[in-house]
Amino acid sequence: MDHQARLISLQGVLNQNRLDALLVSHLPNVRYLCGFTGSAGALLLTEKAAVFFTDGRYTTQARAEVRGARVVIARKASLAAAAEWIASRPGRVVSKGRCRLGVEGQYLSLEDCLQLASTVGSDFRVRPAPALVEEARTIKDSEEIERIRAAAVLAGSLFERILKVLRRGTTEAEVAAEVEYAARTAGAEGMSFPTIIVSGERSALPHGRPGNNPIQSNGFVVCDFGVILSGYCSDRTRTVYVGRPTREARRVYQAVREAQQAAIESVRPGRTAGEVDRVARKVLQGHGLGKYFTHSTGHGVGLEIHEAPRIAAGQSEVLQSGMVITVEPGVYLPGKWGVRIEDMVLVTEQGREVLAPSSTELIAV
Amino acid sequence: MDHQARLISLQGVLNQNRLDALLVSHLPNVRYLCGFTGSAGALLLTEKAAVFFTDGRYTTQARAEVRGARVVIARKASLAAAAEWIASRPGRVVSKGRCRLGVEGQYLSLEDCLQLASTVGSDFRVRPAPALVEEARTIKDSEEIERIRAAAVLAGSLFERILKVLRRGTTEAEVAAEVEYAARTAGAEGMSFPTIIVSGERSALPHGRPGNNPIQSNGFVVCDFGVILSGYCSDRTRTVYVGRPTREARRVYQAVREAQQAAIESVRPGRTAGEVDRVARKVLQGHGLGKYFTHSTGHGVGLEIHEAPRIAAGQSEVLQSGMVITVEPGVYLPGKWGVRIEDMVLVTEQGREVLAPSSTELIAV
Repeated sequence: MDHQARLISLQGVLNQNRLDALLVSHLPNVRYLCGFTGSAGALLLTEKAAVFFTDGRYTTQARAEVRGARVVIARKASLAAAAEWIASRPGRVVSKGRCRLGVEGQYLSLEDCLQLASTVGSDFRVRPAPALVEEARTIKDSEEIERIRAAAVLAGSLFERILKVLRRGTTEAEVAAEVEYAARTAGAEGMSFPTIIVSGERSALPHGRPGNNPIQSNGFVVCDFGVILSGYCSDRTRTVYVGRPTREARRVYQAVREAQQAAIESVRPGRTAGEVDRVARKVLQGHGLGKYFTHSTGHGVGLEIHEAPRIAAGQSEVLQSGMVITVEPGVYLPGKWGVRIEDMVLVTEQGREVLAPSSTELIAV
Repeated sequence: MDHQARLISLQGVLNQNRLDALLVSHLPNVRYLCGFTGSAGALLLTEKAAVFFTDGRYTTQARAEVRGARVVIARKASLAAAAEWIASRPGRVVSKGRCRLGVEGQYLSLEDCLQLASTVGSDFRVRPAPALVEEARTIKDSEEIERIRAAAVLAGSLFERILKVLRRGTTEAEVAAEVEYAARTAGAEGMSFPTIIVSGERSALPHGRPGNNPIQSNGFVVCDFGVILSGYCSDRTRTVYVGRPTREARRVYQAVREAQQAAIESVRPGRTAGEVDRVARKVLQGHGLGKYFTHSTGHGVGLEIHEAPRIAAGQSEVLQSGMVITVEPGVYLPGKWGVRIEDMVLVTEQGREVLAPSSTELIAV
């Protein structure tokens, strides 16, 4: 990963975004820009300078990881250290006049922002910056794609493990425990989000948590899981039926499968995120199930499990080669059950590539 | 848990904190005040009213869980819904004049705050409120204590499991996987923080992550782990030696053990958090190890794994009966190994009670 190039590219657009400096404190953004993987740090950028702040716990790690930025080890919190550094060297940040200091308004807390503004003083105008790093992060480079692919492959193998243990009488929590055990022993740094294994009526809750209730016959089990591998996330959902699927279960499952397939096939550079969402929604509406598809179709995935772009109704963001998104339509029949099918899709110049593809045919156990 | 009493108590101190209304959006605070356990919601309080906002995913759950507040199900994000509700009914929030609307400055993002201020308009003065809920949360009621105790007991049993698998040649990740599997199958909702199993030189990193390296002979393994049970967290650390402990290893281990014991014994109502920290530090200094104790002595635990009070140098917060804190001194010899011993301690009227106590004698495997 060429961190230096990322930094230079961002420094090159500060001025056109009416910023003299940008203070990056959201850790995935910090990692993206300079390679630091620790849990405390902030990166200050001007057109010409890049300074990374962290504390004594990370001295060795920062020196080993950080590329393209000077490293300052401080005795206090990184943000406070950055603020004091700025305040004590206003001339280093900009040459003269009031400085427009951008912060990450989506992540920086009000308290931290007020503290920062007070420390840097009236020579600086602290203001929320546009989501420049988030935008850059939507386009993955080849090394990022390989990491995401590896995370997707591992998630794929976890579903095989699920099929070995998911049975009537097993609890949801036991299945989740198996998935997470398998992920860990296969080298995952962790799960990319709390594993969802929900059965029966509870499968109609899009974000239910695994419970200690035994899985019953005659219903779906939604299994939504992903891992973090080399810092990058994966996200996959498969839904299996316990028992002999009813006609209605088959019908709904096939509708969701058809919606997912159609939405995946609609992915290509130039399409908007909203168009992909509409394709999935339209298929389900055609089956009279539109109103049971209660969430958006997907989201970007990378250093974070949820990142730009959002694949949702009305989103005008244009898909570009190098983006990685999920496509995950679902149908939730309250009091009955739910079905969701999800894969990760890489936008390519030719169209798309499903990462670590596997069958989405209905499986009954 | 008497949510209504918590709400009333908070409503009663708004005015003396120069607030006409308080918008609570930090989810553990929301849960503490009204019982809602979902992942999206905001609670608006005035002296006389309490209104809880969430979205359609949580209709059933909010009606089942929320106590003491009116429930509003909105079609948009809870914070935006609360802002619009306030803006459209200024008279309901306060009777006349400009309203001082407190927000949680430590958690609310700058962007959300600016959006809120813009929506509610100039009749409202949006300002960061004191940490009133965090302060109330430091004193646990009897039901909270029972839940924390149960979470501590489960964490204790996990160490037994660790001892069954931790051997030379096992990887750190395999041990972590075992711990988390055991936690899940025992009913934990999740781990309260990323499990730390670090061996050899890496045990000198206070917050290292489990790796895929096999555990080697002749060094310590720091095991720091905890679970969430009924919403409440536990936190425990034990450090074991692999092989036959050297004289230095024994000496350092005993020093940490002595420091932990002394700090625990110093816990009682009326002591300050800083005093407890000083007791631990002084013991280690007496052994010439003071400079290797590079973090603070502990922290409060409850709905969150790290909450008030901080048990750190200079902290003047006075311990009170009902607080639950960790006591976890450590010594980290860079390039060699580290040792940390941690227990959760309930402050009682008579002094203290270690929750789910277990031996801290040196164990070699």
